[in-house]
Amino acid sequence: MEEWLIPAERRGRGSSVRSGEMAKLTRLIDNEVFWAYAAYATIVLLKMMLMSSVTAYFRITRKAFVNPEDTASFGKGESAKKFLRTDPDVERVRRGHLNDLENIVPFLGIGLLYALSGPELFTALLHFRIFAGSRILHTFAYLIPLPQPSRGLSWAAGYVVTISMAYQVLKTALYL
Amino acid sequence: MEEWLIPAERRGRGSSVRSGEMAKLTRLIDNEVFWAYAAYATIVLLKMMLMSSVTAYFRITRKAFVNPEDTASFGKGESAKKFLRTDPDVERVRRGHLNDLENIVPFLGIGLLYALSGPELFTALLHFRIFAGSRILHTFAYLIPLPQPSRGLSWAAGYVVTISMAYQVLKTALYL
Amino acid sequence: MEEWLIPAERRGRGSSVRSGEMAKLTRLIDNEVFWAYAAYATIVLLKMMLMSSVTAYFRITRKAFVNPEDTASFGKGESAKKFLRTDPDVERVRRGHLNDLENIVPFLGIGLLYALSGPELFTALLHFRIFAGSRILHTFAYLIPLPQPSRGLSWAAGYVVTISMAYQVLKTALYL
Repeated sequence: MEEWLIPAERRGRGSSVRSGEMAKLTRLIDNEVFWAYAAYATIVLLKMMLMSSVTAYFRITRKAFVNPEDTASFGKGESAKKFLRTDPDVERVRRGHLNDLENIVPFLGIGLLYALSGPELFTALLHFRIFAGSRILHTFAYLIPLPQPSRGLSWAAGYVVTISMAYQVLKTALYL
Repeated sequence: MEEWLIPAERRGRGSSVRSGEMAKLTRLIDNEVFWAYAAYATIVLLKMMLMSSVTAYFRITRKAFVNPEDTASFGKGESAKKFLRTDPDVERVRRGHLNDLENIVPFLGIGLLYALSGPELFTALLHFRIFAGSRILHTFAYLIPLPQPSRGLSWAAGYVVTISMAYQVLKTALYL
Repeated sequence: MEEWLIPAERRGRGSSVRSGEMAKLTRLIDNEVFWAYAAYATIVLLKMMLMSSVTAYFRITRKAFVNPEDTASFGKGESAKKFLRTDPDVERVRRGHLNDLENIVPFLGIGLLYALSGPELFTALLHFRIFAGSRILHTFAYLIPLPQPSRGLSWAAGYVVTISMAYQVLKTALYL
């Protein structure tokens, strides 16, 4: 059972009912890896969602909006129009948000497939934790901002870890 | 079987073959939740994809392009260059599209994990429907545009529902 | 077992142990489809990640940055400030990257659900390959750039294939 959760090397083409026993053992390990993935994926997604709130916070405190309907409460006509402007802090948060999207989407997809490819728990946790840590560091490095190469290195750590998981997924998929 | 689909509270560490029976019952419920997720995830993704077509429609009708190669059919040189411009309607649709991305990506990831965490069908449907409704309302509020706080509230509804699902996922993942 | 992997038309509500046999057969097919999805999803995500590196490459070679802290190595004050500018090549890669995000996110979600809806391997491979091909062509069409409608057509191919998979997912989800 759960044959698609068994790592390729342990899986035979003509699997008998007995192989279900092995699958079960593997699956219990996969369970832990899967829910470890679930926890870290949820954490990085919540962190990414936080960026929306930070953007809204900066837009309101800096009074810097894009949509005319958002400035209606500041009065009509020219008096409200001056709030339709870009603010360096708002733009910085938005760049951080977009960078999150660009990097968390690959992690979501590749990480899920990696978790289902039957890696060892220790290795999987190492990957997930480096990724989550790299994105949290990246946010601090971007928003404070810290001098380079802090932001560059934190981005690179998550990038390399995602490629390492992608390699594992492709190996599993092609050995099938 | 399907043990990773069983909610943590019903799952024992040293599960015997008999626990497979319970798993089976749970899985049948999970089935419905999973495919409910599938339906709503597909609907919001199709809605998001529609934004690409709306952008293309406005670019062509407003004659507002970004890439020089896109204006080649309007003639060469200066006559085509005047179509390389931004248009408020195009920019509005693009902002709506980006907001979709920023909010639908967390729903995709967290919603899938939530559906696999074994929630009750009624609760799950409530979450999925509020989210899908909030994104559809958000699009209308952005494109018409409706006066605030329509757009703000429709965005917030989807945001809160995603956090509620994230809480459930983390609870399941950490009880494992 | 794996009942949620069985296409709706073959699945009975009151499934007996015997239906597990059928499920197993179906699952073996699903296995192949699932890992085919895994391979193509990973390939398009790696391609998308490549856009980050291409952006970084152009930013460094064209000396065109957004963040003041990125130009610190070029000296202080006014001498570094002139590198805070937009460059047409950098902007072009960034647009390609955003277009990837807008199209690969729907593929990731809908493609996964489609792979779990029990399609035939041949049909599934056709969908996955057209999508992956369309995104690779789109990148070349955008970055070289090729004259239109190369970019438009390559984008449309991936769009249509995703809608075709979405239709299959909705059919499976609603027949449950």
